[in-house]
Amino acid sequence: MKRNAKVSTAVIRRLPRYYRQLSELQETGVVRISSGALGKSMGLTASQIRQDLFCFGEFGQQGYGYKVDSLKEEIGEILGISRGHTLIVLGTGNLGRAIIQNFRFSANGFALLAAFDVDPVVVGSRIAGVPVRHVNGLEDFIAAHRVDVGLLTVPMAAAQQMGDRLMDAGVKGIWNFTNYELVCARPDVVLESVHFSDSLLTLSYLISQREDMEENP
Amino acid sequence: MKRNAKVSTAVIRRLPRYYRQLSELQETGVVRISSGALGKSMGLTASQIRQDLFCFGEFGQQGYGYKVDSLKEEIGEILGISRGHTLIVLGTGNLGRAIIQNFRFSANGFALLAAFDVDPVVVGSRIAGVPVRHVNGLEDFIAAHRVDVGLLTVPMAAAQQMGDRLMDAGVKGIWNFTNYELVCARPDVVLESVHFSDSLLTLSYLISQREDMEENP
Repeated sequence: MKRNAKVSTAVIRRLPRYYRQLSELQETGVVRISSGALGKSMGLTASQIRQDLFCFGEFGQQGYGYKVDSLKEEIGEILGISRGHTLIVLGTGNLGRAIIQNFRFSANGFALLAAFDVDPVVVGSRIAGVPVRHVNGLEDFIAAHRVDVGLLTVPMAAAQQMGDRLMDAGVKGIWNFTNYELVCARPDVVLESVHFSDSLLTLSYLISQREDMEENP
Repeated sequence: MKRNAKVSTAVIRRLPRYYRQLSELQETGVVRISSGALGKSMGLTASQIRQDLFCFGEFGQQGYGYKVDSLKEEIGEILGISRGHTLIVLGTGNLGRAIIQNFRFSANGFALLAAFDVDPVVVGSRIAGVPVRHVNGLEDFIAAHRVDVGLLTVPMAAAQQMGDRLMDAGVKGIWNFTNYELVCARPDVVLESVHFSDSLLTLSYLISQREDMEENP
């Protein structure tokens, strides 16, 4: 597998979709798929698929297509799924709780080590088996365990402060669900934000386009 | 404002980010901004900003930059924020509850009309003022009100069935949080999915790249 530092953000963002699609194909028993069929299932052209994958090496065979299991495995490698990354959750409100209970961390190659909160009602308890600790012990915990990613679901007012503490304590990445635009001054920390509003506004735009077309066909 | 049917998905996906960034600039009292400064705050080049906005018309003035409030307003128009779109939530588990309680629907131009569930414990109650109805009444409710979007947070096993009911009942869009890849056979319905795993795997990829660089600088 070749590594290419110049891979575009758009291609990087498609990699998890390939992985997801291939996982679903594997579950439904598909063994081999052409780039055309794989593309069609993802709303991409065959040539886009080939170009994307070519950024990372040679996959598939002309006229034969891709073997679903080995392509899934290789993309999983590229995504770092087998690296044993670890994660902690900061904030156990409804959203934090929903993610802890329902998100399949292990299917994405992450071990969820602990959750942190300030509320004495939850500190000391477990959510879906995950221990909830007081945030006072955050730095000690990160120093004692290898924590790669901190997931932020704290209130917006606490977002930057908790983000700074995670960065200072040495995490490699922050997965930000706070809707707050974190300032990340450290080039060695990766910041990935989930902005629900960006998604809803995209939907709003696409609906509005349809409305205009219906009014002026 | 011109409408251009050929605007690329990448540009469309950046529009909500512009809107969010301009909202934050407005809140901090910035009146006017150059394309260079706006780009820098978003990790884009000045020319990319100009190209993106040119898809929708003429904004800003050479050597003067953009007026923050009017650009925000125009992008809001493009996104359909002032169209009075409406939304219902299907599923009031932890995630549904978190979104109902915390997401600022009105700031994104949506009115949240009702939530639906099957659990007799929550049906008839209110979450953050939003009435929870039984899902048996879904079609009647959609017929009686103008419902533009259905937000899905039901269990994966129920996702396709509830998605089909929403489409058959005539919604224009589905905002899918179920992690299930919905099949949407209707070209008139817009499907927008929030896949947490795509976001975490992107983060995993970027962290893995950093790890490799640290090992082989």
